[in-house]
Amino acid sequence: MRRELFDIPEGVVYLDGNSLGAPPKHVAERMQEVIRHQWGTRLIRSWSEGWWEAPQRIGDRIGRLIGAAEGQVVVGDSTSVNVFKALMGAVKGTGRTEIVCDESTFPTDGYIAQSVATLAGLKIRAAHPSSLDLTDETAVVLINHVDYRTGALNDMKALTEQAHDAGAQVVWDLCHSAGVLPIELDALGVDYAVGCTYKFLNGGPGSPAFIYVPKHKQAGFENPLSGWNGHREPFAMEPSYEPDPGIVRARVGTPDILSMLALDAALDVWDDVDLAELRQRGLALTASFREHVEKLTGLEVITPEVRGNQISVRCPDAKAVMDELIARGVIGDHRPPDVLRFGFAPLYVTDDDVIRAAEVLAEVISGFTR
Amino acid sequence: MRRELFDIPEGVVYLDGNSLGAPPKHVAERMQEVIRHQWGTRLIRSWSEGWWEAPQRIGDRIGRLIGAAEGQVVVGDSTSVNVFKALMGAVKGTGRTEIVCDESTFPTDGYIAQSVATLAGLKIRAAHPSSLDLTDETAVVLINHVDYRTGALNDMKALTEQAHDAGAQVVWDLCHSAGVLPIELDALGVDYAVGCTYKFLNGGPGSPAFIYVPKHKQAGFENPLSGWNGHREPFAMEPSYEPDPGIVRARVGTPDILSMLALDAALDVWDDVDLAELRQRGLALTASFREHVEKLTGLEVITPEVRGNQISVRCPDAKAVMDELIARGVIGDHRPPDVLRFGFAPLYVTDDDVIRAAEVLAEVISGFTR
Repeated sequence: MRRELFDIPEGVVYLDGNSLGAPPKHVAERMQEVIRHQWGTRLIRSWSEGWWEAPQRIGDRIGRLIGAAEGQVVVGDSTSVNVFKALMGAVKGTGRTEIVCDESTFPTDGYIAQSVATLAGLKIRAAHPSSLDLTDETAVVLINHVDYRTGALNDMKALTEQAHDAGAQVVWDLCHSAGVLPIELDALGVDYAVGCTYKFLNGGPGSPAFIYVPKHKQAGFENPLSGWNGHREPFAMEPSYEPDPGIVRARVGTPDILSMLALDAALDVWDDVDLAELRQRGLALTASFREHVEKLTGLEVITPEVRGNQISVRCPDAKAVMDELIARGVIGDHRPPDVLRFGFAPLYVTDDDVIRAAEVLAEVISGFTR
Repeated sequence: MRRELFDIPEGVVYLDGNSLGAPPKHVAERMQEVIRHQWGTRLIRSWSEGWWEAPQRIGDRIGRLIGAAEGQVVVGDSTSVNVFKALMGAVKGTGRTEIVCDESTFPTDGYIAQSVATLAGLKIRAAHPSSLDLTDETAVVLINHVDYRTGALNDMKALTEQAHDAGAQVVWDLCHSAGVLPIELDALGVDYAVGCTYKFLNGGPGSPAFIYVPKHKQAGFENPLSGWNGHREPFAMEPSYEPDPGIVRARVGTPDILSMLALDAALDVWDDVDLAELRQRGLALTASFREHVEKLTGLEVITPEVRGNQISVRCPDAKAVMDELIARGVIGDHRPPDVLRFGFAPLYVTDDDVIRAAEVLAEVISGFTR
């Protein structure tokens, strides 16, 4: 849709934007300005010339992409840290005894959920999104919107309703869905959401994650990581912690400004993207690739019809196959033991990329099965 | 000592390196390489070409500056998050009931300590480092090596011994001492230490913080933020958390690579710095500035003789005075209600800077007291 805005090397078919998005061309230059002018010339003064509020301002930019009105998203820390904040906030004071975690979750969510359960004295139970079996003991459910391994898209509306019907809250992990399709956090009454910004949002390696806490839950949200950036008056240097009344209370320590402003620059390419159109384009790319792959023998597409922007393929020798694909200029990745992942970022993946990737995959597979 | 390596605007006397260090000149260019080549050309492959191990590698570079042998320092997250990890790790399993926190601490440490006390079911007590009154109920003491407000330097050796004599552990916050003087964490048997990298280490605005966990404590250290980066085999994507046996267990989520590699570049200026020599230079600069300021009426130097690299001055109208100083090119900062802070980073502050700052301060003060 706007390939010309991205820096992708000649001869490379880049299908790993679901792991690390490609750089928008203007980011490098913007970072020169940030380092030489904002840091170098303005020095400490830049903190009061835009840096301090950057986590909220950039949070609002992401909010537009996930159906969150202003003042409900803040950027900072890693996804893992934000899962911790959201879950600790969600279980606080519920009197319930159980956290339910998507059994196919990206591992870090499960690891953090286990830690939260231990700290808060709850049990943890893994369940598939299709059979959550929520009870009146379930405090919160943690679900990935798109499964990192298979690309399966979970039904946010139905599962949020299911949680609420059981009197539970839901935390959605949007790592693999932000920048993929229209998301309606406010409209669906989601309790908390977190996500990363370095996949389809192209924020740069390890760019800061985000957390969404809707207005009506902010006053009750207790951030267990009560760092000074979330204080009502951070520069008053008061000895006791008084959280900001709004989303700022989800901030913790001093944010990584260079990574954050690279993300800010990267978000420019999203300014007038129509998410419904983007979604159609993503579906078309993945449908086309699926059609090609299904003609090949020895491979099994494990991505269901209701999906994000990736096609995952079960394949013997997955690691060796992927190494060979990469050597031939088709970059995806593999997940143990036997899954090849191909991500299709509609902003820069072209129809020609799909054809070329399918051709190279066919060549490589025939070499392995010969 | 090496002013020529730094980008500082003409006509500016920069005395706020204790808040945000100035940029080493080569950082901007290095970041071009990181963004255009590592991110742009190598794309996802860069994760296995140096990015993944960067937190440990850069941690070791900082280790050299704080007396920590290899494999005991890791970079990532904010200072606040690292205080959380260190305190939660320290109180775990002690059976003791109290956290003692430096009463003059930078606020975020106290806020986080309060949260840890609540989560772990301990009491918190504020005390001055000169009268900690540790008992057999004290699990851990959290102390700032250099006081952010006054510049007072606490005695790491004596206070660590005092904690250990009481059977307690100690967490040192090195934010205002790393890059100021030789620190001997290993030799003094410190239990945990944390610090930021954007002050005297010049890592860039909000550059990632570090945590030190000595070898002999690593096996027992439970990171409450059990993110996938701390897993023994992160790419095995196992459902249960098995921490890395070493310092890697102090990692959490995917690190902010751009901020981290800017820090990495910035650390080059430290490669052959003799910390004892640096310390002498810092003492000379601050002594000289103190001598000038003590001649002025209406001001009171509140920095004690045993100090870090700053001189703090009590002054009526502190905010207005600092605004005027900055307008005249002398950049320090103020802390409410009435403290002016002047930081002297020996790597780039010159003798001429000291004289100029003292002259301008005299002019400005005479304007306010006239």
